[in-house]
Amino acid sequence: MTRFELVHTDRGTGARAGILHTPHGPVETPAFMPVGTHGTVRGLTPEEVRGAGAQIVLANTFHLMLRPGIDLIAEAGGLHRFMHWNGPILTDSGGYQVFSLAHLRRVSDDGVTFRSPIEGREIHLTPERVVEIETQLGADVIMPLDVCLGFPAAPAAAEEAERRTALWAQRSLAAHRRSDQALFGIVQGGFDADTRRRAAEDVAVLGFPGYAIGGLSVGEPRTLTYELAGIVAERLPRGLPRYLMGVGVPPSSIEAVRRGVDMFDCVLPTRVGRTGVALTADGRVNLHNAAHAADLTPLEEDCPCPACRGYTRAYLRHLFKAGEMLGPRLVSLHNVTFMARLAAAMRAAILEDRFAAWSAAALARYQTAW
Amino acid sequence: MTRFELVHTDRGTGARAGILHTPHGPVETPAFMPVGTHGTVRGLTPEEVRGAGAQIVLANTFHLMLRPGIDLIAEAGGLHRFMHWNGPILTDSGGYQVFSLAHLRRVSDDGVTFRSPIEGREIHLTPERVVEIETQLGADVIMPLDVCLGFPAAPAAAEEAERRTALWAQRSLAAHRRSDQALFGIVQGGFDADTRRRAAEDVAVLGFPGYAIGGLSVGEPRTLTYELAGIVAERLPRGLPRYLMGVGVPPSSIEAVRRGVDMFDCVLPTRVGRTGVALTADGRVNLHNAAHAADLTPLEEDCPCPACRGYTRAYLRHLFKAGEMLGPRLVSLHNVTFMARLAAAMRAAILEDRFAAWSAAALARYQTAW
Repeated sequence: MTRFELVHTDRGTGARAGILHTPHGPVETPAFMPVGTHGTVRGLTPEEVRGAGAQIVLANTFHLMLRPGIDLIAEAGGLHRFMHWNGPILTDSGGYQVFSLAHLRRVSDDGVTFRSPIEGREIHLTPERVVEIETQLGADVIMPLDVCLGFPAAPAAAEEAERRTALWAQRSLAAHRRSDQALFGIVQGGFDADTRRRAAEDVAVLGFPGYAIGGLSVGEPRTLTYELAGIVAERLPRGLPRYLMGVGVPPSSIEAVRRGVDMFDCVLPTRVGRTGVALTADGRVNLHNAAHAADLTPLEEDCPCPACRGYTRAYLRHLFKAGEMLGPRLVSLHNVTFMARLAAAMRAAILEDRFAAWSAAALARYQTAW
Repeated sequence: MTRFELVHTDRGTGARAGILHTPHGPVETPAFMPVGTHGTVRGLTPEEVRGAGAQIVLANTFHLMLRPGIDLIAEAGGLHRFMHWNGPILTDSGGYQVFSLAHLRRVSDDGVTFRSPIEGREIHLTPERVVEIETQLGADVIMPLDVCLGFPAAPAAAEEAERRTALWAQRSLAAHRRSDQALFGIVQGGFDADTRRRAAEDVAVLGFPGYAIGGLSVGEPRTLTYELAGIVAERLPRGLPRYLMGVGVPPSSIEAVRRGVDMFDCVLPTRVGRTGVALTADGRVNLHNAAHAADLTPLEEDCPCPACRGYTRAYLRHLFKAGEMLGPRLVSLHNVTFMARLAAAMRAAILEDRFAAWSAAALARYQTAW
């Protein structure tokens, strides 16, 4: 019930415009996916997330499994109902989180064993168990358990991660039954171009309805991120969606889309928004700077979001200085709106075959290093 | 331009229904006024505050003077525009805050001198200066500088506070020029009934368009709060609005309205809401309690607020357990809605001369000690 429609590929670049059709509605791509780790996009209601132009949200299997627990969410009627979001949802498998844990105990071909960072109890996850949990959560797109490495990964570790991720991908596919969910494959493989190429081919032959590029944006130079994302993207089936995991600051999004990526997620827009840093077409704006103390203009003149329509930079800065919760709310809302508008602008440029010129201008205007 | 219309007095009690007409719209009384100390009702947008049924918000002159500063707000077009709330606003004078300061330096008949708790610089406030600041802020109802005491106040101190508050009231009235603002008088006088009676009469003769009862709910027994509020209320002009300052938990609101109070404010609904405590007709509900862990019902079945319409107690509890900002937002919104609905229910009972029975039932049902 979830399928991708490739609408157009930009003539001058590899950038694509498409539609991911899901049981909870369509997602026009390129799409930015706000992250709602615990079943809530930090500080925002689902209505606000939708109003900001976001079409699909991420949630995290690992975190939801630990708290509040999968049985409760299943009893509540699934994650859509539990979190009061009736649009498409993508659940991450938790592979990234498991491999980030200090108390990761053992990894074998069977799965991973770790201690819960909340209660300390030992938990064993297999690819099959992750699929079972995600089936209960009921997201539209689900990710299989994968092996994640940090940068730099030793060649042997990268090979091992690639092999194990491919093995787990097969087992996940075999375990998956729910026809209204799309299980995507994940391409891992560290930071070597040849390993990544082979990983893409190994996973692509398994016949997933969509593919994710994982294990990037974990500390490597940005140019390497783009290069590897491009190498993987061009080896994935043309008619299927490509999701670059965890990459999504404005310039990286543009670079990724240029190389054929359709979907991306990032915690940054809400994470920096909470601290008083706003995304604008000219780069990041830190509201704590004294320059904004008496600035009676909005964050962005042409932005339709509630923060820009109702409030000045001086007022938003005041909220942060006074420790008022409305500040993090409004700037998070602006930042999600900014990313959704950025994705929509990319789509418009692709549909008119002017992505090369559009992206060059957008990158030149964005003044903040990423 | 601000005037009070007394619509009806309940036949069995002293409870009144009225309308406070202001340049920014009418306020039906009894009215609960949410507190927006820094020019924002904690965690909520003005649209949400309005949607919750609140008709007027409080802001604090003292805090806004210290940060972000009055000149900025004046330059932004006044407090309504600065905080993006186009309904009525009442500004507190800051007397309560000044007298709560650790670094209060001197009080004389001229005024008060204290050190800014933010920058440490010495600030001198006179009744005239406070009126001038409130004129710049532009609220619809403004309060004069007054002398606040804690409980128990020595008789001599209470007499002195009463005398100085009356003196400052006269000077405030003389300094006030802006015809679209209503300057209310404040009745102080400690915890002695005779002093309070005299204070009410001394301030009432000055001819304010409305009166506040200050210096209560500062540690004294609740029965004394109600008794003194009632004694003062019955000595104030019948046709003018009566505002009981800082009193507003559900049972106190009901007791105050029964004794002829028209307006009340309290930080409690948002303060406890932020910590996960919800107000309901049955009393407070602490979402941290394990009893709510798998409760798939809303906070209140009959409440129209977004928190009750979209989310279960289990989900709200999950938000607090996970430290997610949406929890404080939603429960604050529910609590403000609860207080606005409580005020509306009181008004309906008054208009039908059934306040005695209604209030007895409401107090019996509310199971939490106040």
